[in-house]
Amino acid sequence: MPAEVLQEAASEMLDWHGSGMSVMEMSHRGKEFMSIRDQAEADLRELLAIPEHFKVLFMQGGGLAENAIVPLNLSRGAAADFVVTGSWSKKSAAEAQKYCRVHEAASNTSDNHTCLPDPGHWQLNSDAQYVHICGNETINGVEFHELPDLKSLGSDAPLVVDFSSHVASRPVDWSRVGLAFGGAQKNLGPAGLTLVVVREDLLGRSMSVCPSAFDYATVATHQSMYNTPPTYAIYVAGLTFQWLKRQGGVAEMERRNVAKAALLYGFIDGSDFYVNKVAKDCRSRMNVPFFLRDETRNDAFLTGAKARGLLQLKGHKSVGGMRASIYNAMPMEGVQALVDYMRDFEHSQA
Amino acid sequence: MPAEVLQEAASEMLDWHGSGMSVMEMSHRGKEFMSIRDQAEADLRELLAIPEHFKVLFMQGGGLAENAIVPLNLSRGAAADFVVTGSWSKKSAAEAQKYCRVHEAASNTSDNHTCLPDPGHWQLNSDAQYVHICGNETINGVEFHELPDLKSLGSDAPLVVDFSSHVASRPVDWSRVGLAFGGAQKNLGPAGLTLVVVREDLLGRSMSVCPSAFDYATVATHQSMYNTPPTYAIYVAGLTFQWLKRQGGVAEMERRNVAKAALLYGFIDGSDFYVNKVAKDCRSRMNVPFFLRDETRNDAFLTGAKARGLLQLKGHKSVGGMRASIYNAMPMEGVQALVDYMRDFEHSQA
Repeated sequence: MPAEVLQEAASEMLDWHGSGMSVMEMSHRGKEFMSIRDQAEADLRELLAIPEHFKVLFMQGGGLAENAIVPLNLSRGAAADFVVTGSWSKKSAAEAQKYCRVHEAASNTSDNHTCLPDPGHWQLNSDAQYVHICGNETINGVEFHELPDLKSLGSDAPLVVDFSSHVASRPVDWSRVGLAFGGAQKNLGPAGLTLVVVREDLLGRSMSVCPSAFDYATVATHQSMYNTPPTYAIYVAGLTFQWLKRQGGVAEMERRNVAKAALLYGFIDGSDFYVNKVAKDCRSRMNVPFFLRDETRNDAFLTGAKARGLLQLKGHKSVGGMRASIYNAMPMEGVQALVDYMRDFEHSQA
Repeated sequence: MPAEVLQEAASEMLDWHGSGMSVMEMSHRGKEFMSIRDQAEADLRELLAIPEHFKVLFMQGGGLAENAIVPLNLSRGAAADFVVTGSWSKKSAAEAQKYCRVHEAASNTSDNHTCLPDPGHWQLNSDAQYVHICGNETINGVEFHELPDLKSLGSDAPLVVDFSSHVASRPVDWSRVGLAFGGAQKNLGPAGLTLVVVREDLLGRSMSVCPSAFDYATVATHQSMYNTPPTYAIYVAGLTFQWLKRQGGVAEMERRNVAKAALLYGFIDGSDFYVNKVAKDCRSRMNVPFFLRDETRNDAFLTGAKARGLLQLKGHKSVGGMRASIYNAMPMEGVQALVDYMRDFEHSQA
């Protein structure tokens, strides 16, 4: 997280704006917290250019809970289409089977999750109440750089995007989206806050077994105050939104993220020592999995990295190799330090 | 919240224990956060004397979400008994109807929620998978001072206690409890954290439509890490647990809460100007609703209170009158200040 945001939170911990209260002590229905919530929503709407006919919901449970909450709200117990592109979309599809028929409209499984299936070849089903994609697969390093235009594919179903791991890293084309959801912990703030941005006409379709606290229509009617919201997490996310605006907003974040990713992928592609296996047109700007061609050197690579303060580079156990996560808060200097180390390590092994 | 807890949180915001990281930046699976989580659980177990055969779960969604999550996990789609003693238990019973048959085993509705129905007269049903009570009704000011012993009433069903609003204000007799749940925001820390304490033999009964993220068995198996937990809220709750231990633990909290309640109820009962309508043996130590006998003076009372810095005294709209909430963090001096004001106001109106 940005140091500026943490400093601001620390300095206001005992007394928010002269109120004599910590944000943690505020009644969530009091005017102080309402102003924090309203400002956070306004800033998020501005940052992501969210149109008026979408509701912004502050919820709890993270992306994994939304894997159930989305079909509870949208599937009508009928069916939904899933595009499987990696670990997260696979999990989402598995959870949805509790509530509706799940069609695998497309999958990159036979390509070992290293490319995106061409939307032109997706098998969209007429009974599907929505089409689910994961915008960015953190484990496999695959990202949609353009959202599919379902209308042009002959479908009227709303597109549901899990944007947990790349929200606020790039603009969103809301004209193609019905609902987007994501845990806030990757790019937007602390764990414990889930964002849901949903087109108004999709409210009111929930199944009878949907818990009231997770019924989008109920949450929207109560301005995310039906149950006590995660007040402090909303506050810190709000500080992060303001930081993002000071940085130049999401367009500037995208510019930086493009440059960071270009540096790292460019180095890997120019090397015979490292390799990234993902097709170039769908490589993630957030999560860069890579492998040493000689995997017997993996331990030495990680040990040397740690000695330079480069942490959390081990790939997910389901994939192996290495993975660099370069979310919004990672500066270009951090990516440069990684590339410098990778070059030095390669030379040290010659 | 205790000022000491807020000061500690502020001072550690940018660097937790020399780790170079904020708690908000920690991976929830990293050793630093795991140590925070483990310490929080150990301290809570010590404070509440939770036996080994109960699991402690750190969840999200608050008490209102648990109104659905409990029947999803325990009702087996069959039936459950509810003891209706006020607004919260009524809400719990209504939500459970989405998942199972709901029996009203007892109710104080005809007494306008001013007493507790005698357990000896509860109509417990043999098909009930559990019996639900709300330990403390915040709006009506009614509290169970002793948990019912269902075995002695001829029932083998587990007792489910919503202890949201009086957790850590008094000891818990776990021999009478199957499951206790509560949002942390009243007595234990910030909003966004839900505590569930559940007897191990009650795990693994969830309905097929229970979201995985809210399946107690799944949450228990993953040590509350199946989905990303509300890390910062767990950390702050942990600081509060340590503060409670320094104060002398839950027994000392109970002693203070008994004294605070005795002062306020004693004053009200000795006055002809104010009245509390709840039966003496079940008056809440946390929430004290009271009325001015001449309700035309209500606005003047609230205005005068505000001038002395006594805030949030207006009763809930469903009940009217006044309500003083005197949770753990409210010191005796705060209650004394209220009593002093109430006496002065009465004299000013003579």
